[in-house]
Amino acid sequence: MSPEFLAELKGRGQLVTDYILNYPAIAQIAPDYLREGVTFYVRKGGKRLRPALVMWACELAGGTTEMALPAAAAIELSHTWTLVHDDIIDNDDLRRGSPSMHAYYRQTWRDQVGEENLESWSRNLAMLVGDIQQALAISMLNTSKSIDPAITQWLVNNLTTSWTTEVLNGEMLDMEFSIQPWEQVSEAQILDMLDKKTASTLAWCGRAGALIGLGKLDLENQLVKSIETICRQAGLAFQLQDDILGLLGNEAELGKPVGSDIREGKKTIMAAHVYARTDAAGKELIKRVLGSRAASSLDIKEVTDLLVQSGGVDYTQQLATGYIQQAQALLANLPDSPAKQYFKEWIDFIIERSF
Amino acid sequence: MSPEFLAELKGRGQLVTDYILNYPAIAQIAPDYLREGVTFYVRKGGKRLRPALVMWACELAGGTTEMALPAAAAIELSHTWTLVHDDIIDNDDLRRGSPSMHAYYRQTWRDQVGEENLESWSRNLAMLVGDIQQALAISMLNTSKSIDPAITQWLVNNLTTSWTTEVLNGEMLDMEFSIQPWEQVSEAQILDMLDKKTASTLAWCGRAGALIGLGKLDLENQLVKSIETICRQAGLAFQLQDDILGLLGNEAELGKPVGSDIREGKKTIMAAHVYARTDAAGKELIKRVLGSRAASSLDIKEVTDLLVQSGGVDYTQQLATGYIQQAQALLANLPDSPAKQYFKEWIDFIIERSF
Repeated sequence: MSPEFLAELKGRGQLVTDYILNYPAIAQIAPDYLREGVTFYVRKGGKRLRPALVMWACELAGGTTEMALPAAAAIELSHTWTLVHDDIIDNDDLRRGSPSMHAYYRQTWRDQVGEENLESWSRNLAMLVGDIQQALAISMLNTSKSIDPAITQWLVNNLTTSWTTEVLNGEMLDMEFSIQPWEQVSEAQILDMLDKKTASTLAWCGRAGALIGLGKLDLENQLVKSIETICRQAGLAFQLQDDILGLLGNEAELGKPVGSDIREGKKTIMAAHVYARTDAAGKELIKRVLGSRAASSLDIKEVTDLLVQSGGVDYTQQLATGYIQQAQALLANLPDSPAKQYFKEWIDFIIERSF
Repeated sequence: MSPEFLAELKGRGQLVTDYILNYPAIAQIAPDYLREGVTFYVRKGGKRLRPALVMWACELAGGTTEMALPAAAAIELSHTWTLVHDDIIDNDDLRRGSPSMHAYYRQTWRDQVGEENLESWSRNLAMLVGDIQQALAISMLNTSKSIDPAITQWLVNNLTTSWTTEVLNGEMLDMEFSIQPWEQVSEAQILDMLDKKTASTLAWCGRAGALIGLGKLDLENQLVKSIETICRQAGLAFQLQDDILGLLGNEAELGKPVGSDIREGKKTIMAAHVYARTDAAGKELIKRVLGSRAASSLDIKEVTDLLVQSGGVDYTQQLATGYIQQAQALLANLPDSPAKQYFKEWIDFIIERSF
C-alpha cells in the first residue's frame, strides 16, 4: 500500500470513528459498561475498509463524503454487531489481537459475578451490546441528511431484510460446516458461504455508496451495478487470501496463534479442494487434525505441507486472482477520479498482500 | 374479560399474525430452521396485547386499522426478539408453557450436534433468530404504507434508539439485580427497571398508534401524550400484578412450576418491600430461599407466607391500583369510541385478574 493510500484510509476511518463516537444516541445508553461496550470495537481501530468503500463509491458516482458518512458509519457498526455475535458463536476470545467483547467483560466482571456464572454473564452482556449496535446502526442510516428520502428508506429496508438475512445465513452455514464431515461440504458451498458472510457486506458498501452518490434510486444504473460487483468480487478474493494467510501467516500477522484455523477445523476452499483430491492417507490426516483442539505443532505442519504441496493454496490463489481480475476489468471501464484510484489500490493490494 | 373483548383481541391478534407470517422478507430467510425460528413464538399465539394497543391508539386518534398494522406487527416482532434473547439470558426453557426458542432448538438438533456442543449450538441459533427478528421488525415499520413519511422515519428512529436502549437497559438492570444482595436493591430501582423493561414497550405502542392515527408528527399533542401515559401506567400495573400472580398463581396459570420466581431469586417490589421492613429472621429467610435453586416446597411456602403476611402483596397491589386509577382517570377524559372501550376493558382487567 502506498503511503498516500494508507493516509487516505486513515482519514476516512477517523471520520467514521468520530461520527459513531459522537452519535447522540450513544450518550443515552445505560449502564456505563453497556455504552462502553457499544463503542469497544470501534475504539479499537482497524482498517475501516467498509466505510471507506461507501465513501469512495459515493464519490465515484458524483456524491460527496458528507452524504456518504451516515451510511458508512451504519455499515461499520452493522459489521461490528455481527463480529460481536460471531465471536460469541465461535467462542473466540481474541479480536484484532486483543480481547473480544465477551472476553473483555469476562475480565472486568470476574470479581463481581464469580467464576461459576462468569461465562454466561459476559456472553449475555456481549449479546446485548450487539443488539444495541444493530439498532443504532439502522438509526444512523435512517437519519441520513442530504439524501433523497426514497434512497434512505430503500437502504434501511435493504439492510434490515436482504443484508441481515444474507449475512446471518452465511454465519449459519459456517456453523453448520463446523459439524459436518468433509465429505458433505463442497467447494461450491464454501464459496456460497463466503459470498453471504463476507462479500455481501462489501457489496452493500459499494451499492449503497453509489446510490447515494448518484442521487436517485436507480438500481439498474450501470455504474451502481459495476461498483457493487467490484466490491463483491474483491470481497471474495479478500476472504480467500485471508484463508491463505490464516494458514501461512505468522502470529503477529494473524493476531492469533499459528494453526488456529486448523485447530478450529475451519472449512476452507483450500482444505475442501485438497480433501476431494488427496489419497486415503491425506483424507485421514485432514480428518484427524482439522478441528482437533489438541493438534500438535507437528500435526499443524503436516497438514499445512499437505495443503501447500497438493495444490490447495495455489488453487485458492488462482481463484482469488480470477475475482480480482474481473474486478479490475470492471473498474478500468469507470471514469477516472481520485476515488477510482483508491479502489484500484485496494484491489491490487488484496492479491499482493500474501506475498 | 367480556366475550366481546376477547373476540376483539383475537381478531387483532390474527391480523398481526397474518401480517408477520406473510411478510415477504420472511420467505427469504435461509436455512429453513432459521426461518421457522423467526416465526416460532409468533405461531405459538399469545394475547397479542401490544399490537392491539397500537391499533386502538391509532383508532382513538382518528386513524384506521390498516394504517396501524405495520407498526403493530413491528412492535410485536420487536417484543419477540427481546423475549428470545431474554430467554437465553435467563436460561429459561419455557415460554408460554412450551419450549423457549433455544430449548426448541436443543430438542431438534440433539442428534446432529451431540450432547457436548448442544447447549451453545441451540443458544447461538436462538441468538441469530432474535437478530433477524430485530431487523425484520424495523423493516416492517420502515415500509409502512399510508403514513406520513416523517412519522415513519421518526418511529424507526425512536424504536432503534430510545426504545432499544431503554428496554435493554431494563434487561441489564434485571440481570444486575440478580447478583446484587437485597440490601443494595431498592424498591425505586425495581420500579425503574420494570418501567424500562416492560412498561416502555406498552408506552411505545400507545404513542406510535396515536401519532399514526393523528396523521402528523406532533409529539406535544395532548391525546398522544395521554395515550402514552395510560399505556405506561397500565404496563407498570400489569407487571406488578404479574409478580403477585408469580407468587400466588398455580402451575397452570403460570405456565411454569409454582415457586419459580422465588427459586430464581427474582427481585420483586413485594420482596424488596418486605425485606426492608422485616426482622432479622425474615431477612435471613429471604436471603436463604430467594435465589436458591434447591429451595424445598416448605421453603417456598414459608417465604410466600412471609411476603403475604408482612404486607408485601397488599402493598404491591396498592401500587398497581394507584397506577390503574391514574390510567383510568386519563382515559375518562378522552372522547368516547369503541377503541376507548377496549382500553377501558383492558385496564380494568389488569387489576381484576389476580382475584
